[in-house]
Amino acid sequence: EVCHPLVIGNSRILARTADDLGLGLKFVNVEDPSQKISPGAFPVLAVPACSSPETPGPLSKVEGGRVSFAYVAKGGKMAFNGEVQALVTGPVSKEAIAEAGIPFRGHTEYLAEISRTPNFVMMLAGEKLRVALVTTHLPLRDVPGALEEEKIFSVIRITCRGLRDFFGFSAPRVAVTALNPHGGEGGLFGREETMISRAIARAREQRLEVSGPWPADSLFHRVLQGEFEAVVCMYHDQGLIPLKMLHFDSAVNITLGLPFIRTSVDHGVAYDIAGQGRASSRSMEEAIRMAVEMVKKRNTKS
Amino acid sequence: EVCHPLVIGNSRILARTADDLGLGLKFVNVEDPSQKISPGAFPVLAVPACSSPETPGPLSKVEGGRVSFAYVAKGGKMAFNGEVQALVTGPVSKEAIAEAGIPFRGHTEYLAEISRTPNFVMMLAGEKLRVALVTTHLPLRDVPGALEEEKIFSVIRITCRGLRDFFGFSAPRVAVTALNPHGGEGGLFGREETMISRAIARAREQRLEVSGPWPADSLFHRVLQGEFEAVVCMYHDQGLIPLKMLHFDSAVNITLGLPFIRTSVDHGVAYDIAGQGRASSRSMEEAIRMAVEMVKKRNTKS
Repeated sequence: EVCHPLVIGNSRILARTADDLGLGLKFVNVEDPSQKISPGAFPVLAVPACSSPETPGPLSKVEGGRVSFAYVAKGGKMAFNGEVQALVTGPVSKEAIAEAGIPFRGHTEYLAEISRTPNFVMMLAGEKLRVALVTTHLPLRDVPGALEEEKIFSVIRITCRGLRDFFGFSAPRVAVTALNPHGGEGGLFGREETMISRAIARAREQRLEVSGPWPADSLFHRVLQGEFEAVVCMYHDQGLIPLKMLHFDSAVNITLGLPFIRTSVDHGVAYDIAGQGRASSRSMEEAIRMAVEMVKKRNTKS
Repeated sequence: EVCHPLVIGNSRILARTADDLGLGLKFVNVEDPSQKISPGAFPVLAVPACSSPETPGPLSKVEGGRVSFAYVAKGGKMAFNGEVQALVTGPVSKEAIAEAGIPFRGHTEYLAEISRTPNFVMMLAGEKLRVALVTTHLPLRDVPGALEEEKIFSVIRITCRGLRDFFGFSAPRVAVTALNPHGGEGGLFGREETMISRAIARAREQRLEVSGPWPADSLFHRVLQGEFEAVVCMYHDQGLIPLKMLHFDSAVNITLGLPFIRTSVDHGVAYDIAGQGRASSRSMEEAIRMAVEMVKKRNTKS
């Protein structure tokens, strides 16, 4: 309804799984994204010399890791070369890819690497709330030491630019959280809020509508009242707690700063229920919808 | 409507402020809580030898600090001696009390001290969510080091007992958060989740319905679905972000573990708008209502 999808994968396994689950879907192998196929079928692009595991789930972990990496690599290259207008990724198991002997820190880091992108931002978005993270998957004890003025400034800038280019906000209002409770109690709690303030001041010099550091506990209420288009958060749970409370299975993971549009589901592989038709497709649907919206907003702009 | 209130304060200043704001309230000095007064008036208990500042706000900060401490001390003693059934506190300025030369770490710590309570818990509660904090006003960098198995166990136990004694839950279900994102990624992120697990195991041995450590980001959605009566959180913003998002001006601060019922507003003094009639009374109303409910639930039980 909203886009011309292209699945990178194995049409035979997709067809068999769809049959097993009684989904009534058809898959057709294509050689390139522009190839015309009969309406109602899904075009599938195979990755040559890449065998897919026959069994879903943990039993085929290493094979699954190898092939899921190959699919991400293919998708990333196509997006980077402009062969597709956006890339939407499903979950992969970092562990499985590592067990397949491939050095891999995550989809996003890989996509940044192949597109030579030094600075990128993980944004999680739902209908009512968008959060951008300064640090992502770090132990809480490492968060204060990982914050740097330059990094915070970069996240603010990429977030503002992303909201302008892909979300249609001509002058997006972005709130930045404090790290410490009550916004650091006026400096009593350490130097972090001073550093965050300096990054905000630099962003304001570039005429970006950025404010903070705000105490995180009372900020999200204001976001829900419509005061801000996005919140830049210092650490994972600071942004993900409010996001997942509001948008439990409908949040989308967006990578800003890459030279192409990329969205992703915000959940893991769930090997334990693989192939059973029990996983919710909601986040994937929203990720596709979001990618399409971002393409439209970008096209309107240019 | 719901209780016999007793105000500890200065009736002259209360009456003048009420007049200035056109509130039409009457205040009558009483000598003790049981004294009968004409209906419609508010009984006020003065603290002897305690002069109140004539000007509201920052201009009378030191006098304000001294007198607010005297009121808290009087209220605490009355509650401890059973002269009143519950104590509801307004905000005080720790800074002002310190400037008045009184050593003071906070209301709650003071009330614990006079009642010889070694372990107490700060719980914040709204209609949909109750959170209990293992650590409270600490810089984020000090949180991991401040967590101890014994402390976590004590917070779990006091929370469960409080929910049973004052909230009417015969077997309260309590969720405990992980400290690190994704619940610590199976131990990859440090030893904190192991310690939290040990505290949970000890609580379960005492037949308490406690579970976790749960990844904090996906937990609050489950709480809203009715899976748990309360959440034990490791640090301030972990609990206060979801609480204030849901209950911005209606959350109540409850101290569990004291030998008397004590609730409090969950906001500060707001000296900048003192005496102007602009502050919301919502949190104070809810704190009174909550204290009354807790008294009723305790009376039903015993």
